[in-house]
Amino acid sequence: MIRGRKVAGIIGGMGPAATADLFTKIVAMTEAVRDQEHIHILIDNNTDIPDRTAAILQGVGDPLTPMIESGRRLVAQGADFLLVPCNTAHHYWQPLSEAMEVPVLNMPRLALEECRRQGLGCVGLLATEGCVKSGVYSRVFAGSGVELLCPEGELQQALMHIIYDEVKAGLPAHPEALHPYLKEMERRGAGAFLLACTELPIAFAGDGAFRYMDVTGLLAAEAIRQAGGKVRE
Amino acid sequence: MIRGRKVAGIIGGMGPAATADLFTKIVAMTEAVRDQEHIHILIDNNTDIPDRTAAILQGVGDPLTPMIESGRRLVAQGADFLLVPCNTAHHYWQPLSEAMEVPVLNMPRLALEECRRQGLGCVGLLATEGCVKSGVYSRVFAGSGVELLCPEGELQQALMHIIYDEVKAGLPAHPEALHPYLKEMERRGAGAFLLACTELPIAFAGDGAFRYMDVTGLLAAEAIRQAGGKVRE
Repeated sequence: MIRGRKVAGIIGGMGPAATADLFTKIVAMTEAVRDQEHIHILIDNNTDIPDRTAAILQGVGDPLTPMIESGRRLVAQGADFLLVPCNTAHHYWQPLSEAMEVPVLNMPRLALEECRRQGLGCVGLLATEGCVKSGVYSRVFAGSGVELLCPEGELQQALMHIIYDEVKAGLPAHPEALHPYLKEMERRGAGAFLLACTELPIAFAGDGAFRYMDVTGLLAAEAIRQAGGKVRE
Repeated sequence: MIRGRKVAGIIGGMGPAATADLFTKIVAMTEAVRDQEHIHILIDNNTDIPDRTAAILQGVGDPLTPMIESGRRLVAQGADFLLVPCNTAHHYWQPLSEAMEVPVLNMPRLALEECRRQGLGCVGLLATEGCVKSGVYSRVFAGSGVELLCPEGELQQALMHIIYDEVKAGLPAHPEALHPYLKEMERRGAGAFLLACTELPIAFAGDGAFRYMDVTGLLAAEAIRQAGGKVRE
């Protein structure tokens, strides 16, 4: 790491595969030819944090307190800014940010910026039920000029299946099961689909059937920039 | 994480891609169907640590002091045992272990145990020049009954190229360039090849031309067991 750069702290474990995916993307996306040109990253892969969707929809468990504790440990260890590679956990972004002495990056805002950069007027949201129902993305996109089509019914069920019963369970994912629903959303105007659950870029890796936006990849690029590193072209 | 389990601490950044590879392997190899069944891992991807081969061969830089500092920070944060996903860095395993209050896993010993488990009488070592010349593996294998064939000359140069100019530089790796040398080692009796530099399992992913032993994978499995998790069959 070049002296004077900032240290990234990752409040991870939500889930572990998604945390490893973010870390792998940060390393792969950094313009560097030797170890010392990469950014310094601290990761707390804390698998004790209760499930976010269950907490939001059924009031089961408290994910915020362990997220704050994890963030404080990372800052005490030297983190200059924090990342939370779980879109659903962004339901707690405001109180988490207020409890931290350092900035916490915001995934829905990064996604909105990228939609604007790409000139997209309407996108389909692919996320957990907790993320959708609590308005994590719709609050950020409201009044932005970018229309957000949210999953409902069978598509929401199919998304929960791929996230919980396939990726989180360590089994092969079948993103093609979602294609008919995405085709319908595309007909309604979606110019791209936000992979707005950190398990989804893992599930959709290699699927080129639709135009996807990897929000984990956007978070990785922003982390490299914030740390003073260079994003590989 | 199930209460009472142990927390793994990874002294990482040597290199970053290798650290991400170890983390990804730990997650993929854990028998778990939900986030909370995975092990708690703390990672310090400290890219400030000087190059190990340069330190060993040319006396340039001091990797041990920042490794000790990183280990102490991880222990202070809650790590119950430590992992160092860099085979060359195991040159410093003894003084590092003595400076820590918790156990530090040992990659060459894990490789030797696996050779015995597989009944291998002779294996080829694929590692950096620093790792080979400082005897990181040969000291552990001496008198074990498992013969170790070490790389020399053109093979050592080809290994350094693949490790430094391909994997660490973020470029595609060409493991097939090593095949003629491995064929020769096989003729001399090597029953398998130890991928004993943490960049090599990345380079050799998908190469089925010879029988390879992924030492990073052995470290991942041992970390899961030490943490009280279950290794996926």
